[in-house]
Amino acid sequence: MIERITSLSNPRILHARKLYDLKYRRQESAFIAEGLKSVGQAFDSKAEIRTLIFNPDQLSSDFGQSLVDRASQAGIQVIEVPAYILESLARKDKPQGILAVGSQRWSVFDSEAATGQGIWVALESVQNPGNLGTIIRTCDAAGAKGLILLDESTDPYDPAAIKASMGSIFAVPHFKTGVDGLRHWLGLSKPVVIGTSDKAQTDYSQYEYPGHLLFLMGSERQGLSGRYLDICEQTLAIPMQGSADSLNLAVATALVVYQAYNQLRSKTV
Amino acid sequence: MIERITSLSNPRILHARKLYDLKYRRQESAFIAEGLKSVGQAFDSKAEIRTLIFNPDQLSSDFGQSLVDRASQAGIQVIEVPAYILESLARKDKPQGILAVGSQRWSVFDSEAATGQGIWVALESVQNPGNLGTIIRTCDAAGAKGLILLDESTDPYDPAAIKASMGSIFAVPHFKTGVDGLRHWLGLSKPVVIGTSDKAQTDYSQYEYPGHLLFLMGSERQGLSGRYLDICEQTLAIPMQGSADSLNLAVATALVVYQAYNQLRSKTV
Repeated sequence: MIERITSLSNPRILHARKLYDLKYRRQESAFIAEGLKSVGQAFDSKAEIRTLIFNPDQLSSDFGQSLVDRASQAGIQVIEVPAYILESLARKDKPQGILAVGSQRWSVFDSEAATGQGIWVALESVQNPGNLGTIIRTCDAAGAKGLILLDESTDPYDPAAIKASMGSIFAVPHFKTGVDGLRHWLGLSKPVVIGTSDKAQTDYSQYEYPGHLLFLMGSERQGLSGRYLDICEQTLAIPMQGSADSLNLAVATALVVYQAYNQLRSKTV
Repeated sequence: MIERITSLSNPRILHARKLYDLKYRRQESAFIAEGLKSVGQAFDSKAEIRTLIFNPDQLSSDFGQSLVDRASQAGIQVIEVPAYILESLARKDKPQGILAVGSQRWSVFDSEAATGQGIWVALESVQNPGNLGTIIRTCDAAGAKGLILLDESTDPYDPAAIKASMGSIFAVPHFKTGVDGLRHWLGLSKPVVIGTSDKAQTDYSQYEYPGHLLFLMGSERQGLSGRYLDICEQTLAIPMQGSADSLNLAVATALVVYQAYNQLRSKTV
C-alpha cells in the first residue's frame, strides 16, 4: 500500500531529511540514497530498505516504476510525495524522483566475508566523501573483497559518498577500525600489505602483485602516516613528472588496484 | 607596494568575487585561484597574475610569505585584506590566506605547443568541474602534452576545477573546440585516436600504445557519442566486474593515460 504525504513537517519526511546529518545518521544506523542508480543498486545488493519515497511526475522511466513495484511487493513502506517534498530532500540538481531510506550494513570484522582472499583496500583518514565514494565504485568494478576505513575517515553513508559510489557502497563489504584493529585483522586475513609513497623505490607498474593483498592508502593531505607505513611489507611509487607532486587519492587508489586486478585477470585466464 | 582594503564593497573585491560567476569569468578572460598550492603553481607556470589578495594572519607559512614577496617584486598589484574579506572570497573551509586573480591562458589551436608528440586527452562535454580538475592534475603528472575540451565542457577555470587540478591548470596546455575543429587539429597533429567503450574488444591493459596518441573520453552520463566514436581508430575497454557498470570519468581517464605513460616510460629507459 502506498501512503501519500503532502506535509513537509510530516515525521517521516523530517526523519529522512535529518539523515543528511552525520550524527543522526550514525544514531539511526541508517542512510538516505538518491536517484535511480543508487536506489536500484541498494535493491540489487539486498540492502535493508526501510522506506521508499517517490514523486510519480519526476519518476518517468520504467525502471523507476519497477523499483516502486518491487518495494510494494516486498512489503516496504512506500511514500508518494509531491515534487516540492522530494526536492526538499534531494541534493542533486535534477532529482530523479526517487529516494530510499535504509539500514547501514557494516561487515563483521572477523567474519568469513571480511577475511576473503583477493584485493583489499584500507584508507587512512580519508576526508572527502566524493573521493571515498569514487574509491568504493572502483573497488566494486575491480572485484575488490572489501574496504577498511581507518581512524577518522569520512562516512561512506554520507549522501555525497553514496552518490559518488553510484550505489556500490551497497555491494562492497566495508568496516572501520584503527591501527590495533587493523593489526588484529591482518593476523586473521594475512594479506601482503602494500603502501604507496612517492619515496618508494619500486614502480607500481613493474611490481608482481600477490593474489591476496591489502593496499594501504594515506589521506588526501598527509599521505600515509608512520604508524601505517611501519605495517607495510612493500611500498610502491606511482611515477610523476611535470609540476604535479601528487595525484588525487581516488586516482592513485584506482591505479594500484587496477594494476593488481589486471595482473590477476591475466593469470586466471 | 601593498594596498590595504577593508571594505567588502571595494570595486577590486567585487571584481574578484564576481569571478566565481562563469559569464563574468569568460567576459574578463580571468580566473580566481585559492590556496598556497594553486597560487604557487600559477606563479611557477608563469600564469599572468593581475592581483594577489592575502590576509597576513591566515598566511602563516614561509612559502605563503614568499609568494607575496614575489608578487611585490614583480610589480603585481598586492592587496592586504582582513580575514572577513578573504573568507568572503574563499570557497574552502579552511582558506589558506591567499588568492590570486589572473588571466586565462588558452593554447593557440595550431601552434607548435598544441601539436606536440605524446599523450593527448580530449573530453566530450565533461560536466563536473571536480572531474575536469582531477583529469588536468593527472595529465600534468603523466606528462601529457595537452587537453582538448569538446563541445559543452565545463570551464577549467571554474574555481572547483582549479582547486581539483591543484594548480595544474596553469601547467597543462588546453584549448576548446567542436567536432570540426577536432578533425582539423587531427589533420595537423596526426595522433592515433583512441576511444574507450565498454563494448570494445581490446583490453586497455593488453594494448600496445603508440608514442603519439589522443584519448577521446565521453561525458560522465552519456559516454562517447557516435560522431566521436566514428573518429576513433581504436577503442579500448576497461574490464569491470561486480555490480559497477562504469567507472568515474577521472578514474577511467587516469587508467588509460597511465597505462600509455607506463609503456612509454619503459621504452625510453
